[in-house]
Amino acid sequence: MKIIAIDSSGLVATVALATEETVIAEYTVNYKKTHSQTLLPMLDEIKKMTELDLAQIDAIAIASGPGSFTGLRIGSATAKGLGLALKKPLIEVPTVDAMAMNLWGTKDIVCPIMDARRNQVYTGIYEFGADDDLVRIHEQFADDIGVVTGMINDIGRPVIFLGDGVPVYKEAITEAISVPYRFAPPHMSRQRAGALAYLAARYYSEGRTVSAADHKPDYLRVSQAERERAAAEGKSENVTTSEKIG
Amino acid sequence: MKIIAIDSSGLVATVALATEETVIAEYTVNYKKTHSQTLLPMLDEIKKMTELDLAQIDAIAIASGPGSFTGLRIGSATAKGLGLALKKPLIEVPTVDAMAMNLWGTKDIVCPIMDARRNQVYTGIYEFGADDDLVRIHEQFADDIGVVTGMINDIGRPVIFLGDGVPVYKEAITEAISVPYRFAPPHMSRQRAGALAYLAARYYSEGRTVSAADHKPDYLRVSQAERERAAAEGKSENVTTSEKIG
Repeated sequence: MKIIAIDSSGLVATVALATEETVIAEYTVNYKKTHSQTLLPMLDEIKKMTELDLAQIDAIAIASGPGSFTGLRIGSATAKGLGLALKKPLIEVPTVDAMAMNLWGTKDIVCPIMDARRNQVYTGIYEFGADDDLVRIHEQFADDIGVVTGMINDIGRPVIFLGDGVPVYKEAITEAISVPYRFAPPHMSRQRAGALAYLAARYYSEGRTVSAADHKPDYLRVSQAERERAAAEGKSENVTTSEKIG
Repeated sequence: MKIIAIDSSGLVATVALATEETVIAEYTVNYKKTHSQTLLPMLDEIKKMTELDLAQIDAIAIASGPGSFTGLRIGSATAKGLGLALKKPLIEVPTVDAMAMNLWGTKDIVCPIMDARRNQVYTGIYEFGADDDLVRIHEQFADDIGVVTGMINDIGRPVIFLGDGVPVYKEAITEAISVPYRFAPPHMSRQRAGALAYLAARYYSEGRTVSAADHKPDYLRVSQAERERAAAEGKSENVTTSEKIG
């Protein structure tokens, strides 16, 4: 079983080619270029390097959100295009779940945080169970960093933070946190398509796929454009789930 | 401070561009091509993608062994060439130390194993200290897999195995091990230049560099050619350190 995995949800663009057992290739770039300049060339590079016949791919895994609106759209468009062209299903993996997989092996709580602007983060709270499975203590959500540190303080266990939200909110975390805390080192701190592929391979074996036509990113929050329109129309912006924003 | 990191010690070829705080780019390939076909093109790809001016590099980090003799030679030749051309120092990072860094965050013992043929592995036994520093319980060495499992049984703590030796020796490990054990998932199980760069950045800040001219791979064992010559000359092959094989 062979999967292409794509994540352009944050500052990082990352692509991988993997089976259940091996990461055949993984390429990650954390650079100021836009994902529209990086993602397809990176995928093409991996394809050439591994002499990949795209027809051999079984599915395309995509970090399905939350994340940067533009980044998610570029990632999803790429995954949908591949899925439609190759007639292969997509595997939607929640962005924050995949990030937590970077810390497999720890007994501490894992808290990925992505900068969501407006003093908010996209985050989730995780641990690894007795069988090493990723367990969601709190499913991914968007909220103020102070709410997140409060929730972690309530849980009362040591925590590891990671993600591109760390440099932005390091000071706020340090001031508010009352449990032992650590920040993941650089090589474990950003989205990795290899980690995404690992979760995706499990989902695939459980039949958890969607068609390319049906896939939509899960933004978790309304976009700035929608917020501004709602404000202009005098509506509340309390719309926080993808179901609601369709 | 900017580092290029290179590891071609095993089946994987992996290159990264990193600072102390960020992995700017990381590219890893686990494919049947030889490292002479992959390593420089991968580095060139990263250079282009990140618009890197090689003159801005402060040092070149190299997985200095143990590992495949040919792989180590290709990696070292590449690092030496870069160092000489750019007039920059090299940072030698023991291969097995860098692999252990993949499992940062765990409280268990970490045991990377690389297949060294002849029923042997290149390995080392590690843990992460209270300050998250990598601690060597046993510095990297080459020995029979049964000796390694025996040492781990004696330590008596849970262990995580990783590395390209796992698929080769999984059955031998499972039969011999008496402590709780796990195998790292695919995305944490092979050499990563990002992990290498993290250790290298620390070494660099401590002034632990060598000149390109002075760098030599640390083979840990004598090569097959040297073994055969020694056998023909009736000598013992008990030569296990790089100092001795000079």
